[in-house]
This record gives sequence, C-alpha cells and structure tokens, in this order.
Amino acid sequence: MNTGSTPSGAVDTAAVKTYLQGLQARIVAGLEALDGTPFLTDAWQRPEGGGGISRVLEEGGVFERAGVLFSHVTGDKLPPSASAHRQGLAGRAFEAMGVSLVLHPRNPYVPTVHLNVRCFVAAARPEAAQGTPDAEPAWWFGGGMDLTPYYGFEKDAVRFHSVCRQALEPFGPELHPRFKKWCDEYFYLKHRGEPRGVGGIFYDDFSELGFERSFAMTRSVGDAFLDAYGPIVERRKDMPYGERERDFQAYRRGRYVEFNLVFDRGTLFGLQSGGRTESILCSMPPVVKWRYAWTPEPGSPEAALYTDFLRARDWV
Amino acid sequence: MNTGSTPSGAVDTAAVKTYLQGLQARIVAGLEALDGTPFLTDAWQRPEGGGGISRVLEEGGVFERAGVLFSHVTGDKLPPSASAHRQGLAGRAFEAMGVSLVLHPRNPYVPTVHLNVRCFVAAARPEAAQGTPDAEPAWWFGGGMDLTPYYGFEKDAVRFHSVCRQALEPFGPELHPRFKKWCDEYFYLKHRGEPRGVGGIFYDDFSELGFERSFAMTRSVGDAFLDAYGPIVERRKDMPYGERERDFQAYRRGRYVEFNLVFDRGTLFGLQSGGRTESILCSMPPVVKWRYAWTPEPGSPEAALYTDFLRARDWV
Repeated sequence: MNTGSTPSGAVDTAAVKTYLQGLQARIVAGLEALDGTPFLTDAWQRPEGGGGISRVLEEGGVFERAGVLFSHVTGDKLPPSASAHRQGLAGRAFEAMGVSLVLHPRNPYVPTVHLNVRCFVAAARPEAAQGTPDAEPAWWFGGGMDLTPYYGFEKDAVRFHSVCRQALEPFGPELHPRFKKWCDEYFYLKHRGEPRGVGGIFYDDFSELGFERSFAMTRSVGDAFLDAYGPIVERRKDMPYGERERDFQAYRRGRYVEFNLVFDRGTLFGLQSGGRTESILCSMPPVVKWRYAWTPEPGSPEAALYTDFLRARDWV
Repeated sequence: MNTGSTPSGAVDTAAVKTYLQGLQARIVAGLEALDGTPFLTDAWQRPEGGGGISRVLEEGGVFERAGVLFSHVTGDKLPPSASAHRQGLAGRAFEAMGVSLVLHPRNPYVPTVHLNVRCFVAAARPEAAQGTPDAEPAWWFGGGMDLTPYYGFEKDAVRFHSVCRQALEPFGPELHPRFKKWCDEYFYLKHRGEPRGVGGIFYDDFSELGFERSFAMTRSVGDAFLDAYGPIVERRKDMPYGERERDFQAYRRGRYVEFNLVFDRGTLFGLQSGGRTESILCSMPPVVKWRYAWTPEPGSPEAALYTDFLRARDWV
C-alpha cells in the first residue's frame, strides 16, 4: 500500500493545478449554459502565498447564488489542524489546491449541490536524514459531492448516486460503498439528528492507490459532476412553485448554514486561520429563514423530505 | 480577593434561580407591553438533568423573532470546555443556570440586542481532603448585554452604554471600562475584522466580589436591561423604512449568524454537547441574506454604520 510518501519527482502538482483550473472552467461553462447568465470572475492573491479565482453568479436564471472556486495556497508551516489523520506533518512547508462549489438554485424543486476536489502536499523537511519518512513529501487527495434537496425525488437521488458510483468503479468496487458511508457520516447535523441531504460521496487523506491513480480517481470524480447534477437541474428547473415552497426552501437552507458554520472542517479552518472570507462564505445561501421548533405537517410534501429522504439509504 | 471557592453554605443557588426566573418574567412582560403580542411558553426537560422555559415571540408587532430563555442544567461531570479560565474543575458535578435573550426587531432602525446573565457552580469533590481547594464548591457569574444596530444612532449607543455603566457603578468604578473592553474583544468577528455592533458589557468567571456582591452585581445588570433597551425601541419602532433598509438589515443579520455559529462559546458548547437545539438557535434571525463581496456605497447611511459605529469607541 502506498502511504502517500513518494520520491519528490512523483508528485506532479503542476498537472493537478492544470487539471483543477480546467475543471473550474468546464463546470462554469456548463452552469452558464444551464442558467443563461455569465458568472463573474474575481481573482485574488493571498499575502502569505498563493491565491485563487472565484467564479460567482448571483440572481441568475436558475441559480440564486452559485460559487465555483479555485484556490492554490502555499505556506511555510502546515497548521496542525490541516490533517485530521496524519502525524508529524505540522510545521512542514505545504501546498494545497482545490476546486470547491456550492450551488443554490432559486426553484425549490432543484436541489442544492456541493462538490470539492483537492490535493494537499507537505514538503520534505530539508534537514531530514535520507531514507526517513520526513525526507520525502507527503501528499493526499480529498473530495466528494453531495446533494441537498428541499423536495425529494427518488429519481434524482438515484441518478446522483449512480453517477458517483460509476466515477469510482474503475478504481475498485469497494470505494463507492466506503465513500458513500463516509459522506453520510460527515454531512450529518449532530445537533439536529439529521443528515444534510441525500448524500453522495466523500473522501479525505487519500493516497492508497499511489499518486497517478489517486489523481486519476479524483479527476474521475470532478469530471462526473456535471453529469451527476445537470440532468437533475434540467428536469426540475421549470416546475411551478409558490410562496409555500420558497418558504420551506429558505427554512431548510438554515440547516446548510448550521452545518457549514458549526461542523464543516474546511469552513472553520478557513475562517479561523485567515482564509478569504468572501470565498469561503460563498457557500452561504442567498436567503435563509429560521423559526422556532417548526415541524412540517404529517403527510405533507415537506414531511416527506424528512421521512423518505433525510435518512441514510442505499440509493443504487 | 475572593477566588470563587466558598464554604458550601454560602452558595445560595436557590436564590439565584428565583431571581433568574423572575427576571425572565419581568423582561417578557416588558417586551409584551412594547410589542402588543404575547410570547409563547415552552417548558422543556433535559434527560441528563435540569431543563428550562423558553419564551418565544415570532411575527410580533415590533419583534420579528424574539427569545427570552431560562435554563437550569445539572450534570455529573463538568466538561473541560465549560470554563475557559479555571483549572482542575473538569469532572466535578455541576449546576449552571441563566437567562439569555436575543431580540430581532422587524424595523431596521431598531437595533438587535442580546443579554445573558448566568451562574455556574462546580460541586466540591466528595473525596477531597478537608482544607484543599477541591473540598469546596467553585462558583462564578457571567453575563452582559450588547447592542447591534443596522442603522446607527449615537443617542441610542450612548443610552445603552450609560445604563450599563450605571448598573456597574455601585460595584466599583473600574468594572465598567473593564467589562466594556471585554465586550468589544469578545463580540468581534475576526474573519471580517468587524465588531458585532456597538458593544456593551461582558464578563465571565466573575467571583472576585464574593458571592453576595457578585450576585448583586449580576442582578444589577439583569435589572438594567429593559431600561437600557426599551427607550431605544420606543424611539425607533415607528420610523418609516422601505425595501432598501430591510435588505440591508437581512444582509447584516448574516454577521450575527456568523458570530454565533463560528465564535460564540455558549452556542458552540451547547450544540456540540447535546444542548437543546431550538432554544440555542433562538438567537438566529428570522430572515437572513448573504451576497458576494458586497460593500455599501461610500457616503450612504449603510456606509455610516461601518465608519461611525462598527469600531470600538468610548460612548459615555
């Protein structure tokens, strides 16, 4: 098993960066075609090293708020919180890059969606003795996508999960069930006893296939996004809705805020460590409502979300 | 100086509880008189010990969402995170009680306000040798109030701070500047480089005046609330406003959400440790908006909030 330490030549971060920037451009083009509105482009530099390109759409035809973000951040000292599962990397020079998106459609029948693919490299320690683990860079990939409907449709959940499974299939049959379960566990609101939505896939600290295959797997996940989500948007975007559905959507979006601000590692790490606030909080919905101790009427379409969709299920 | 360890007889938690329940009732009565709408009453029990009474108003005449909460929680083992400043208390039996409120008015010219007064007692360790610190209960008070305008008025900020100062004056002239500074530091959004509002007072781990005087000071803070805030509501609640002001209010309320979910110790501790979610999240505003990289037009009334009010100032 490859542990994610390789001779430095094997970690081709330039290729990862090229892929990620291309992925951002392709996804934005796909979403612009769906929406009919161009995304704005906001490039930024990080004083401590690196920067990013935020592509943002607000008040579009389909998307009320959408952010597709690329960032490439470098630093002298890896913060201890950067890796949940790896010992001994804190303090190394590092490089992190990724594409991250959250799309908040206006029509409550179109689900919200999230995608992230990222690559992390901790440099070798210059002073380390040859042959010791510290003498080699450590790297890993992470990523996934998950779907958050307001009104659930089995067909949509099945499609999303099927495309996720297909994307992982070439890399081993055990990956999809593992990453699906990881997603169900990660995107869970403990204080509500509720999953964030119908799930998808999630993985982190991934290097076990070696650099080339782990990168290929991550590409397969990124490349699958438009195929997983686009047809769902096409199917739902012209469904008629009224104030009731908009209201429920705004209420349920509160859960998205709660998850991202209370539990999401990336969001918290970013906000607490001086990340770019406006990019990180691109995931916040455009309009959100909270109300006290509200529950949907039993038997209503809103209740069906809780009973039929907000529970871990085998969708494919 | 009293360190907050006393012979057990001196910690009269029954008196604190009686005071807090009375305070909740008086504040709710005062707010009902201002609003013209009765608050609902929601009593709840905590399976692990204790419970509370949540008084909530939604869609009132003045308040779009308001929660005035009493809770009294007991436990076998104090979590290490309960006290930021005290060593050696983790694992003791404990008792915590408090009144907490957040009021979100509908009219954008009426500021949002927060009040909290609380008392914490960690029991003596039964096995501790007589004369050691562990043989005595430890207790402390905490609390404060702070004001968050959407459109700032100097007169309102001055009144709020003046009443806060008067409430603390009988207990020592150094308390107000100290607690005002503590408030400015605590209610600060690091990721925005912005204070939450115009501040007020904040204190925690407070026992230095001894139990009787520390309790009296906390009563003085609680008792001052309606006098600090009520006249501001009266002055502003009938000011005409339009969509522009409502929109800015909803945007600024996003900051309130960000602070409470990312930084507020009480909220995070509650959500992560199995507190009552609907009560804790009573502080969330009813309608909130986020938008990307927005800044107010220079010279506008919205810009004045940032330049004239969202900075630490000596208001009195």
